[in-house]
Amino acid sequence: MSQRSTIEEMDRHDCELMLSQMPIGRIGVLFGGRPVILPVNYRFVDGEIVFRTFTGQKYHAAKARQDVSFEVDAWDLELRTGWSVLVKGHAEPILETAKLAAADELALDSWTDIAHHGPWVRIIPDEITGRRLV
Amino acid sequence: MSQRSTIEEMDRHDCELMLSQMPIGRIGVLFGGRPVILPVNYRFVDGEIVFRTFTGQKYHAAKARQDVSFEVDAWDLELRTGWSVLVKGHAEPILETAKLAAADELALDSWTDIAHHGPWVRIIPDEITGRRLV
Repeated sequence: MSQRSTIEEMDRHDCELMLSQMPIGRIGVLFGGRPVILPVNYRFVDGEIVFRTFTGQKYHAAKARQDVSFEVDAWDLELRTGWSVLVKGHAEPILETAKLAAADELALDSWTDIAHHGPWVRIIPDEITGRRLV
Repeated sequence: MSQRSTIEEMDRHDCELMLSQMPIGRIGVLFGGRPVILPVNYRFVDGEIVFRTFTGQKYHAAKARQDVSFEVDAWDLELRTGWSVLVKGHAEPILETAKLAAADELALDSWTDIAHHGPWVRIIPDEITGRRLV
Protein backbone atom coordinates (compact mmCIF):
# COMPACT_ATOMS: atom_id res chain seq x y z
CA MET A 1 0.00 0.00 0.00
CA SER A 2 2.95 2.36 0.27
CA GLN A 3 4.04 2.52 -3.34
CA ARG A 4 3.72 5.97 -4.79
CA SER A 5 3.74 7.07 -8.38
CA THR A 6 5.26 10.06 -10.06
CA ILE A 7 3.30 12.38 -12.33
CA GLU A 8 4.58 12.87 -15.87
CA GLU A 9 3.15 15.14 -18.55
CA MET A 10 1.97 13.34 -21.70
CA ASP A 11 2.80 14.75 -25.10
CA ARG A 12 0.11 15.75 -27.60
CA HIS A 13 0.54 12.61 -29.70
CA ASP A 14 -0.05 10.31 -26.74
CA CYS A 15 -3.05 12.38 -25.61
CA GLU A 16 -4.67 12.10 -29.05
CA LEU A 17 -3.92 8.37 -29.18
CA MET A 18 -5.75 7.87 -25.90
CA LEU A 19 -8.67 10.02 -27.08
CA SER A 20 -8.88 7.83 -30.20
CA GLN A 21 -9.00 4.62 -28.24
CA MET A 22 -11.50 5.27 -25.45
CA PRO A 23 -15.21 4.67 -25.98
CA ILE A 24 -16.46 6.75 -23.05
CA GLY A 25 -15.40 10.12 -21.71
CA ARG A 26 -16.87 12.78 -19.49
CA ILE A 27 -17.88 16.29 -20.40
CA GLY A 28 -17.65 19.09 -17.86
CA VAL A 29 -20.31 21.74 -18.40
CA LEU A 30 -21.55 24.66 -16.37
CA PHE A 31 -25.15 24.14 -15.31
CA GLY A 32 -26.94 26.25 -12.73
CA GLY A 33 -23.67 28.03 -11.92
CA ARG A 34 -21.89 24.80 -11.04
CA PRO A 35 -19.51 22.54 -12.97
CA VAL A 36 -21.28 19.25 -13.69
CA ILE A 37 -19.66 16.04 -14.99
CA LEU A 38 -21.62 13.89 -17.45
CA PRO A 39 -20.39 10.66 -19.10
CA VAL A 40 -20.86 10.22 -22.82
CA ASN A 41 -19.89 7.72 -25.49
CA TYR A 42 -18.02 9.57 -28.20
CA ARG A 43 -15.59 9.42 -31.08
CA PHE A 44 -12.46 11.49 -31.65
CA VAL A 45 -12.65 12.50 -35.32
CA ASP A 46 -10.44 15.00 -37.18
CA GLY A 47 -9.23 16.40 -33.89
CA GLU A 48 -12.73 16.94 -32.49
CA ILE A 49 -14.83 15.16 -29.86
CA VAL A 50 -18.10 14.07 -31.50
CA PHE A 51 -21.14 12.62 -29.77
CA ARG A 52 -24.87 12.35 -29.93
CA THR A 53 -27.05 13.47 -27.07
CA PHE A 54 -30.60 14.32 -26.22
CA THR A 55 -31.87 17.76 -25.36
CA GLY A 56 -30.50 17.94 -21.82
CA GLN A 57 -27.57 19.62 -20.08
CA LYS A 58 -25.01 18.59 -22.70
CA TYR A 59 -27.06 19.99 -25.55
CA HIS A 60 -27.77 23.11 -23.55
CA ALA A 61 -23.99 23.68 -23.26
CA ALA A 62 -23.54 23.10 -27.00
CA LYS A 63 -26.31 25.50 -28.00
CA ALA A 64 -24.73 28.15 -25.77
CA ARG A 65 -21.28 27.38 -27.31
CA GLN A 66 -20.03 27.03 -23.78
CA ASP A 67 -16.41 26.65 -22.75
CA VAL A 68 -16.34 23.04 -21.59
CA SER A 69 -13.84 20.35 -20.75
CA PHE A 70 -13.70 16.68 -21.68
CA GLU A 71 -11.86 13.98 -19.80
CA VAL A 72 -10.83 10.36 -20.35
CA ASP A 73 -8.79 8.24 -17.98
CA ALA A 74 -7.80 4.66 -17.10
CA TRP A 75 -6.23 3.22 -13.97
CA ASP A 76 -4.45 0.13 -12.74
CA LEU A 77 -5.48 -0.20 -9.12
CA GLU A 78 -2.83 -2.80 -8.29
CA LEU A 79 0.10 -0.91 -9.71
CA ARG A 80 -1.34 2.52 -8.89
CA THR A 81 -0.54 3.69 -12.35
CA GLY A 82 -2.74 5.22 -15.01
CA TRP A 83 -3.32 8.30 -17.05
CA SER A 84 -5.85 11.03 -17.73
CA VAL A 85 -6.32 13.36 -20.66
CA LEU A 86 -8.11 16.70 -20.38
CA VAL A 87 -9.46 18.61 -23.36
CA LYS A 88 -10.39 22.25 -22.96
CA GLY A 89 -12.50 23.71 -25.72
CA HIS A 90 -15.98 24.79 -26.62
CA ALA A 91 -19.03 22.74 -27.47
CA GLU A 92 -21.37 23.44 -30.36
CA PRO A 93 -24.16 21.66 -32.21
CA ILE A 94 -23.17 20.10 -35.54
CA LEU A 95 -25.38 21.89 -38.04
CA GLU A 96 -23.63 21.71 -41.42
CA THR A 97 -25.19 19.15 -43.75
CA ALA A 98 -21.82 17.69 -44.79
CA LYS A 99 -20.65 17.34 -41.21
CA LEU A 100 -23.96 15.77 -40.21
CA ALA A 101 -23.65 13.24 -43.01
CA ALA A 102 -20.10 12.45 -41.88
CA ALA A 103 -21.30 12.07 -38.30
CA ASP A 104 -24.03 9.67 -39.42
CA GLU A 105 -21.32 7.61 -41.13
CA LEU A 106 -19.40 7.18 -37.87
CA ALA A 107 -19.54 3.84 -36.21
CA LEU A 108 -20.86 5.69 -33.20
CA ASP A 109 -24.00 4.01 -32.08
CA SER A 110 -25.65 5.61 -29.07
CA TRP A 111 -25.72 3.36 -26.06
CA THR A 112 -29.05 4.70 -24.93
CA ASP A 113 -32.37 4.54 -26.67
CA ILE A 114 -33.06 8.14 -25.67
CA ALA A 115 -30.00 9.63 -27.46
CA HIS A 116 -30.32 7.50 -30.57
CA HIS A 117 -32.17 10.13 -32.57
CA GLY A 118 -30.76 13.11 -30.68
CA PRO A 119 -28.73 15.99 -32.08
CA TRP A 120 -24.99 15.73 -32.82
CA VAL A 121 -22.57 17.81 -30.80
CA ARG A 122 -18.86 18.44 -31.16
CA ILE A 123 -16.19 19.84 -28.88
CA ILE A 124 -13.50 21.82 -30.67
CA PRO A 125 -10.33 21.68 -28.55
CA ASP A 126 -8.30 24.74 -27.61
CA GLU A 127 -5.89 22.71 -25.51
CA ILE A 128 -5.22 19.02 -24.92
CA THR A 129 -3.07 17.93 -21.98
CA GLY A 130 -2.47 14.65 -20.23
CA ARG A 131 -0.82 13.23 -17.17
CA ARG A 132 0.54 9.79 -16.57
CA LEU A 133 1.20 8.18 -13.20
CA VAL A 134 4.28 5.98 -13.49
CA MET B 1 -23.66 -3.19 -32.13
CA SER B 2 -27.32 -2.29 -32.26
CA GLN B 3 -28.28 -3.07 -28.68
CA ARG B 4 -29.41 -0.02 -26.79
CA SER B 5 -29.80 0.46 -23.10
CA THR B 6 -32.40 2.24 -21.06
CA ILE B 7 -31.58 4.86 -18.45
CA GLU B 8 -32.84 4.27 -14.92
CA GLU B 9 -32.44 6.55 -11.93
CA MET B 10 -30.52 5.04 -9.02
CA ASP B 11 -31.78 5.47 -5.46
CA ARG B 12 -29.71 7.20 -2.78
CA HIS B 13 -28.68 3.93 -1.14
CA ASP B 14 -27.23 2.53 -4.36
CA CYS B 15 -25.47 5.81 -5.12
CA GLU B 16 -23.77 5.80 -1.70
CA LEU B 17 -22.84 2.15 -2.10
CA MET B 18 -21.07 2.92 -5.37
CA LEU B 19 -19.32 5.94 -3.81
CA SER B 20 -18.10 3.66 -1.00
CA GLN B 21 -16.65 1.11 -3.38
CA MET B 22 -14.78 3.14 -5.96
CA PRO B 23 -11.14 4.15 -5.41
CA ILE B 24 -11.01 6.94 -8.00
CA GLY B 25 -13.47 9.66 -8.90
CA ARG B 26 -13.38 12.96 -10.71
CA ILE B 27 -13.94 16.41 -9.29
CA GLY B 28 -15.43 19.14 -11.44
CA VAL B 29 -14.16 22.58 -10.47
CA LEU B 30 -14.36 26.00 -12.05
CA PHE B 31 -10.90 27.23 -13.06
CA GLY B 32 -10.27 30.22 -15.28
CA GLY B 33 -14.02 30.51 -15.95
CA ARG B 34 -14.27 26.99 -17.31
CA PRO B 35 -15.39 23.69 -15.78
CA VAL B 36 -12.35 21.42 -15.44
CA ILE B 37 -12.40 17.67 -14.63
CA LEU B 38 -9.63 16.28 -12.43
CA PRO B 39 -9.29 12.64 -11.28
CA VAL B 40 -8.56 11.95 -7.61
CA ASN B 41 -8.27 8.93 -5.34
CA TYR B 42 -10.67 9.43 -2.48
CA ARG B 43 -12.72 7.87 0.29
CA PHE B 44 -16.43 8.28 1.04
CA VAL B 45 -16.56 8.78 4.82
CA ASP B 46 -19.57 9.80 6.92
CA GLY B 47 -21.38 10.96 3.83
CA GLU B 48 -18.49 13.14 2.60
CA ILE B 49 -15.91 12.81 -0.17
CA VAL B 50 -12.44 13.04 1.40
CA PHE B 51 -9.13 13.28 -0.41
CA ARG B 52 -5.63 14.63 -0.18
CA THR B 53 -4.22 16.97 -2.77
CA PHE B 54 -1.41 19.36 -3.41
CA THR B 55 -1.79 23.09 -3.76
CA GLY B 56 -3.22 23.12 -7.28
CA GLN B 57 -6.62 23.58 -8.87
CA LYS B 58 -8.42 21.23 -6.49
CA TYR B 59 -7.10 22.97 -3.42
CA HIS B 60 -7.86 26.33 -4.98
CA ALA B 61 -11.52 25.25 -5.29
CA ALA B 62 -11.55 24.04 -1.68
CA LYS B 63 -10.08 27.25 -0.28
CA ALA B 64 -12.70 29.24 -2.18
CA ARG B 65 -15.44 26.86 -0.87
CA GLN B 66 -16.52 26.46 -4.46
CA ASP B 67 -19.66 24.71 -5.63
CA VAL B 68 -18.21 21.61 -7.25
CA SER B 69 -19.33 18.23 -8.53
CA PHE B 70 -17.84 14.79 -8.10
CA GLU B 71 -18.40 11.83 -10.39
CA VAL B 72 -17.74 8.08 -10.36
CA ASP B 73 -18.74 5.62 -13.06
CA ALA B 74 -18.12 2.13 -14.42
CA TRP B 75 -18.99 0.58 -17.77
CA ASP B 76 -19.31 -2.78 -19.46
CA LEU B 77 -18.36 -2.14 -23.07
CA GLU B 78 -19.63 -5.49 -24.31
CA LEU B 79 -23.04 -5.27 -22.72
CA ARG B 80 -23.26 -1.48 -23.03
CA THR B 81 -24.37 -1.27 -19.48
CA GLY B 82 -22.96 0.70 -16.57
CA TRP B 83 -23.72 3.44 -14.12
CA SER B 84 -22.60 6.88 -13.02
CA VAL B 85 -23.09 8.77 -9.78
CA LEU B 86 -22.93 12.55 -9.56
CA VAL B 87 -22.44 14.43 -6.31
CA LYS B 88 -23.21 18.14 -6.19
CA GLY B 89 -21.84 20.00 -3.19
CA HIS B 90 -19.13 22.35 -2.06
CA ALA B 91 -15.47 21.72 -1.41
CA GLU B 92 -13.58 22.95 1.63
CA PRO B 93 -10.23 22.33 3.30
CA ILE B 94 -10.36 20.06 6.37
CA LEU B 95 -9.07 22.28 9.15
CA GLU B 96 -10.48 20.91 12.44
CA THR B 97 -7.90 18.96 14.45
CA ALA B 98 -10.27 16.07 15.18
CA LYS B 99 -11.26 15.74 11.54
CA LEU B 100 -7.64 15.90 10.43
CA ALA B 101 -6.74 13.15 12.88
CA ALA B 102 -9.63 11.04 11.53
CA ALA B 103 -8.47 11.71 7.97
CA ASP B 104 -4.96 10.59 8.83
CA GLU B 105 -6.47 7.35 10.17
CA LEU B 106 -8.12 6.58 6.84
CA ALA B 107 -6.60 3.86 4.75
CA LEU B 108 -6.28 6.50 2.06
CA ASP B 109 -2.75 6.52 0.84
CA SER B 110 -2.05 9.05 -1.87
CA TRP B 111 -1.10 7.50 -5.17
CA THR B 112 1.31 10.28 -6.01
CA ASP B 113 4.41 11.34 -4.18
CA ILE B 114 3.45 14.98 -4.68
CA ALA B 115 0.10 14.74 -2.82
CA HIS B 116 1.40 12.57 0.00
CA HIS B 117 1.97 15.44 2.40
CA GLY B 118 -0.63 17.76 0.88
CA PRO B 119 -3.67 19.28 2.57
CA TRP B 120 -6.89 17.32 3.13
CA VAL B 121 -10.05 18.39 1.34
CA ARG B 122 -13.66 17.32 1.66
CA ILE B 123 -16.74 17.71 -0.49
CA ILE B 124 -19.96 18.07 1.47
CA PRO B 125 -22.82 16.86 -0.73
CA ASP B 126 -26.01 18.84 -1.31
CA GLU B 127 -27.38 16.28 -3.75
CA ILE B 128 -26.40 12.77 -4.84
CA THR B 129 -27.95 11.27 -7.96
CA GLY B 130 -27.14 8.32 -10.14
CA ARG B 131 -28.11 6.75 -13.42
CA ARG B 132 -27.86 3.18 -14.52
CA LEU B 133 -27.87 1.89 -18.09
CA VAL B 134 -29.67 -1.44 -18.20
